[in-house]
Amino acid sequence: MSLTVVGSIALDTVETPLGKAEEILGGAAVFFSLAAAHFCRVNLIGVVGKDFPEEHAQLLSSRNINMDGLERADGKTFRWSARYHDDINERDTLDTQLNVLESFQPKLTQTSTEAPYLFLANIHPSLQLDVLNQSKPVFVGLDSMNLWIDIAPDMLKQVLKKIDCLVINDAEARQLTGENNLPVAARHIQNLGPATVIIKKGEHGCLLFGKDGQIFAAPAIPLDRVIDPTGAGDTFAGGFMGYIADKGNSDWATLKQAVVHGTVLASFACESFGPDSLATIGKDDINKRIQLFSELTHFTS
Amino acid sequence: MSLTVVGSIALDTVETPLGKAEEILGGAAVFFSLAAAHFCRVNLIGVVGKDFPEEHAQLLSSRNINMDGLERADGKTFRWSARYHDDINERDTLDTQLNVLESFQPKLTQTSTEAPYLFLANIHPSLQLDVLNQSKPVFVGLDSMNLWIDIAPDMLKQVLKKIDCLVINDAEARQLTGENNLPVAARHIQNLGPATVIIKKGEHGCLLFGKDGQIFAAPAIPLDRVIDPTGAGDTFAGGFMGYIADKGNSDWATLKQAVVHGTVLASFACESFGPDSLATIGKDDINKRIQLFSELTHFTS
Repeated sequence: MSLTVVGSIALDTVETPLGKAEEILGGAAVFFSLAAAHFCRVNLIGVVGKDFPEEHAQLLSSRNINMDGLERADGKTFRWSARYHDDINERDTLDTQLNVLESFQPKLTQTSTEAPYLFLANIHPSLQLDVLNQSKPVFVGLDSMNLWIDIAPDMLKQVLKKIDCLVINDAEARQLTGENNLPVAARHIQNLGPATVIIKKGEHGCLLFGKDGQIFAAPAIPLDRVIDPTGAGDTFAGGFMGYIADKGNSDWATLKQAVVHGTVLASFACESFGPDSLATIGKDDINKRIQLFSELTHFTS
Repeated sequence: MSLTVVGSIALDTVETPLGKAEEILGGAAVFFSLAAAHFCRVNLIGVVGKDFPEEHAQLLSSRNINMDGLERADGKTFRWSARYHDDINERDTLDTQLNVLESFQPKLTQTSTEAPYLFLANIHPSLQLDVLNQSKPVFVGLDSMNLWIDIAPDMLKQVLKKIDCLVINDAEARQLTGENNLPVAARHIQNLGPATVIIKKGEHGCLLFGKDGQIFAAPAIPLDRVIDPTGAGDTFAGGFMGYIADKGNSDWATLKQAVVHGTVLASFACESFGPDSLATIGKDDINKRIQLFSELTHFTS
């Protein structure tokens, strides 16, 4: 089944201990789409400026991504710049220029409205609510960030009532609930709406919480060289949602498989600047790394 | 087979968000022994002062722990005091009084010398070396800390050449190797001596690195209530070493099982102040939680 994602498209400038890349393709919806498109057809809803290189749009179109929902607005594309520390789990954001993203009003195409699976990447909760009102999906995933928890918590809670799965990082889960213990924070979030909660922990992997109290812990795949972790969380969400949309099912066994697929896709995202590696890997590469994940965690009691 | 541990015995004063406990039984060798004794006979080598309550020694003796190596020195028992933050993964050490530990010279008994398994808990590397020279174990595990990496790195490296398994936390692994990437840091440590390396990551579990490049990732067991995490790492090491000593084997499958058993024991340690819970649980409690761990990570590719 098909999947719609609404979120940012960016030109990123990133410096890590292993190099620097300037004005490369980025943004949550881009990483998400390139990951999800390995499993299902993806409708991307987002905005770019007149300066957005045509080759980027072509790359996305060539990868099972429907770009009819790409809006080209007057002005410049959203830009984001960051420098990672020697410990690559830490970074400083150097610059954020919202540009055309500042007045973004997502407009769903007919095709994207009809997709049964929807992911609302990190944008203002009022826009997420607006998208929800334009569509009737069977399963909605959501991301958010510290900024919206800070300045629009009530709006965010309205959105949470209407979704099926929140994908959020550990610091955000703690901030949203005021609860330091992650299993307790997850249950708190479930009480706000979403039956399924995923708490991402960066290099430590993630925890999946199911509606009947189940927990699944997935470590990240250990990598010898992390070239650029930008977008790893969005890639995770793309692999997760793409897998679910492809199966047309969100039972516990499928959710666990989806988390493993998201974990594997995220590991590839860390191995290149920008989303390049997501566009070059194939089914075989993914399956080999699924096998690696299996060996990494295999234990018989 | 039997197991000897050399390390600290303490009276701890601990404050966590869930309460405060004063002058309770603590110390690395105590947590270690109470965990390991669920699997095998343990010889505890350590020192206390004349003020050490007899009931603590009796508790240890009652739990499959040989206390013949307990030295009662003139002076006061080692004392340690800490306050945990609301985020219980963070703590401030408030006070450390070495007392009799300051002049501790471990003397192995005949029985403890003959034990084929040996664990050197966190004490000065020169003492660890001294213990190694008193014994001929078949498998040696080691812990250390930031202080010794700082002030006695050469001595620590001499010890590392002679051991089989280093159990260390992530910050210490990074400090010891100057390498932020954990798999690379682990290989770096393996090149210094130990064929097996375990990197502990607190609430995120641990990574086990085998001599043939294998990696096993074990998440921590999610707990709704962490009452006091003091000694969880030492408890992990005790469960790990105790399991191996019981099996008399350290092949890859056994090492993985040992890590899971260490993980399970550590989860119990967090559920009471001090090591109380380790003394009250039985085989059934452990096996139930092994099953829980299995469900937490179970995935079929």
